[in-house]
Amino acid sequence: MNASTPAPRPALLGLDWGTSNLRAFLLAADGTLLAERGSPRGIRHLAQPAPAGFEQALDEVAGDWLRDQPDLPMVACGMVGSAQGWQEARYVDCPADVATLARQAVVIRTAHGPLHMAPGLIDRPAADSGRPPDVMRGEEIQIAGALALQPALAARACLLLPGTHAKWAQVRQGRVTGFRTFMTGELYAVLRRHSLLGQTMPAEGSTGSDDAAFQAGVARARQAGPGELAHQLFGSRTLGLTGQLTPQGQADYLSGLLIGHEVVAGLAALRAEGDGDPPPLVLIGEPALLARYAGALRALGHAPAALLGNPAPQGLHQFAQAAGLLTEGPTA
Amino acid sequence: MNASTPAPRPALLGLDWGTSNLRAFLLAADGTLLAERGSPRGIRHLAQPAPAGFEQALDEVAGDWLRDQPDLPMVACGMVGSAQGWQEARYVDCPADVATLARQAVVIRTAHGPLHMAPGLIDRPAADSGRPPDVMRGEEIQIAGALALQPALAARACLLLPGTHAKWAQVRQGRVTGFRTFMTGELYAVLRRHSLLGQTMPAEGSTGSDDAAFQAGVARARQAGPGELAHQLFGSRTLGLTGQLTPQGQADYLSGLLIGHEVVAGLAALRAEGDGDPPPLVLIGEPALLARYAGALRALGHAPAALLGNPAPQGLHQFAQAAGLLTEGPTA
Repeated sequence: MNASTPAPRPALLGLDWGTSNLRAFLLAADGTLLAERGSPRGIRHLAQPAPAGFEQALDEVAGDWLRDQPDLPMVACGMVGSAQGWQEARYVDCPADVATLARQAVVIRTAHGPLHMAPGLIDRPAADSGRPPDVMRGEEIQIAGALALQPALAARACLLLPGTHAKWAQVRQGRVTGFRTFMTGELYAVLRRHSLLGQTMPAEGSTGSDDAAFQAGVARARQAGPGELAHQLFGSRTLGLTGQLTPQGQADYLSGLLIGHEVVAGLAALRAEGDGDPPPLVLIGEPALLARYAGALRALGHAPAALLGNPAPQGLHQFAQAAGLLTEGPTA
Repeated sequence: MNASTPAPRPALLGLDWGTSNLRAFLLAADGTLLAERGSPRGIRHLAQPAPAGFEQALDEVAGDWLRDQPDLPMVACGMVGSAQGWQEARYVDCPADVATLARQAVVIRTAHGPLHMAPGLIDRPAADSGRPPDVMRGEEIQIAGALALQPALAARACLLLPGTHAKWAQVRQGRVTGFRTFMTGELYAVLRRHSLLGQTMPAEGSTGSDDAAFQAGVARARQAGPGELAHQLFGSRTLGLTGQLTPQGQADYLSGLLIGHEVVAGLAALRAEGDGDPPPLVLIGEPALLARYAGALRALGHAPAALLGNPAPQGLHQFAQAAGLLTEGPTA
C-alpha cells in the first residue's frame, strides 16, 4: 500500500458477544480489520437489566464509532443471540453455510440502528442414532471466517475450535454438515478450581508448564477404554502423592488427560466419517491452547494441517456481506 | 437373647474419621454395635488447629464413653490417618488383609489413651502397565467389615463402594489384590454446582427423580467409545434446550451418564480380570446410591450379587481384633 493511500473507511461494526466478554471489530468493506476493542460486558456481566444493559454495553464499546458514522451497519454473533441474550436467534439446522445464517438472521432495533444477529447452529443426528442434538453459537461465524481465510478448506475439512466447550465441525462444500461439542475446557476449570485434584496444584495463571507431564497425560488417555475418564483423573492425584508429579505437573497431566481424551474420541469420529481417509484438520483459537492440542494430535498420530487465530472478524464480515449489508452501506 | 440378659459391655470405640465427618461406634467384644454417633468434625472442620483440634473432636464425640471406661481400646480409619490428619499412617501395598492393616497400624498417644489408626492401601500396578498407582483410605476397613459379614465373599469377589471417589476392589482369599478409583461422585458434584450443566438443573436435594432420564443416561454411556465423556456430558444441556429433558431430568441424565461410564469401564476390567468368568459383584454404601448403581449394572448386563449398608463398624471391630486389642481389653 502506498503511503499516500487514505485509510480505508469503516464499513461495518462486528460484535463477538459472548457470556463473559464482548469484542468489537471495526471493519472496512473488503474485510480489513481497522480497529478492535474488548469489553467485560458479556451477557452475564451487564451493568443494567436487559434490554438497557445491552444498549449501554454497545454504546460503551462502540458509541464513538457509531456517532462518527451513524449509518454503520452492525452485525453480532455469540450468546447475545441466545434465550438469555438481547433477543433470541433460534438455532439453524445443519447443513448450513454463511448464506443460511444471513437468511435466518434476527434484526434488533437498537438506539444506534439495526443490529443483525447471526443464529447458532444445531446438529440433529438421526433419532435412531441415540445421539442427542448438539449446538453451537458464535463458532459458526469463526468457521465462516476460517473458510474465507483458507478457501481450500471449504471442499472438505474438520475445524477444531478448542475452548470451554470445544467444537469439532465437519465442513463439506462450504457448509457445516455436523459437529460435536466436548466440554474439555470447562471440565478442566471445574476440576482445578473445585475438586480435590486442584488442591495440590498451583494457583491458576502460574507461569511455567511441564510439557513432559502434559504428554504423560496424553499417553495415558491413549490407553483409555470406554468410560475410563473418571478413573484416569484420579491418577493426577496419586502421581502427586507418590512424588511422580510436581504440583505444576499435576495440572499439566490433567490438561493432557482431558485434551487427550477429547482428541482420542474426535479422531475416532473423524476416521469413521472419513472412511479411512480423514479430512484435513484445522485448529482455530488461542496460540497457547492450540499448541497443546497440536501436541496431543501429533502424539495420537494426526498432525493438524493448519493453525488459525481468531477468524471472528472475517466471519462477521462474511455474514454482513451475505446479509447484503455491505453493498447497501453508506457511500458518503 | 433372653430379656434378662444384661446389655453387652462396651469393648471398643471405633472411629470412621473422614474429611467432612466423624462417626463414632461403641462396640461389644463380639462386634455388636451398641451405640453410634455422628459429628461434623471431619479433619477439614476441626474447631482448633491440630493436634488440639483432633483431641477436642474426639472428646466431643466420645468423651463421656471414654470417661465411663477409661481403658476402652480405640481404633480409627479414614483421612485422620492421611498426611493432613492427626498422624500419617502410610499406605500399605496390595495384596493386603486386615492382619496386614493391623501390623502396620500407627498408634497415637491421645489424652484418652492409645488410638490405633489403620493405614490406607496402595495398588501399584507394574511400571510397564502405564497405570498410575491407586489409593484408598477408609474403604479398606469397610471391605474388612463386608468380608466379616459375608465370609463367602472372601474367596473371590469384586466389592464396589460408590461415592465421591468410588472404589472397585478385587478380593481373593481374603485379601484386597488391587482396586480402581472412579471420581464419579465428585464429577457429578462439581458439574452440578459449578458448570453450565448445573445452571438448568433444580437445587440439589430437591425431591423426586426421573428414572427414565437416569436410564437414558446409562443407555447413552453404553454407546461411548474411548474419550467420549466430555462430549456426552453436553447432551444433558442440549436435551434440556430442545425440551427432551426437564430440569430434574437433566440432573438424572447426568447421573446416569456418569455412573454408566463408570460401570462400563468397571465391568470391562472385571471381565478382563475374570477371564470370561467375572467374580460376584457386591455393592456397599448408601441405599439410594446403591439403587442407582444396581439399576445401571442391570442395564449393562451384570446384576449385583448383593447390596450391603455401611460395614465400617464391623471392619473396625475386625481391625481391633487383628491388632489384639480385644483379647487384651478390660475385663473388670
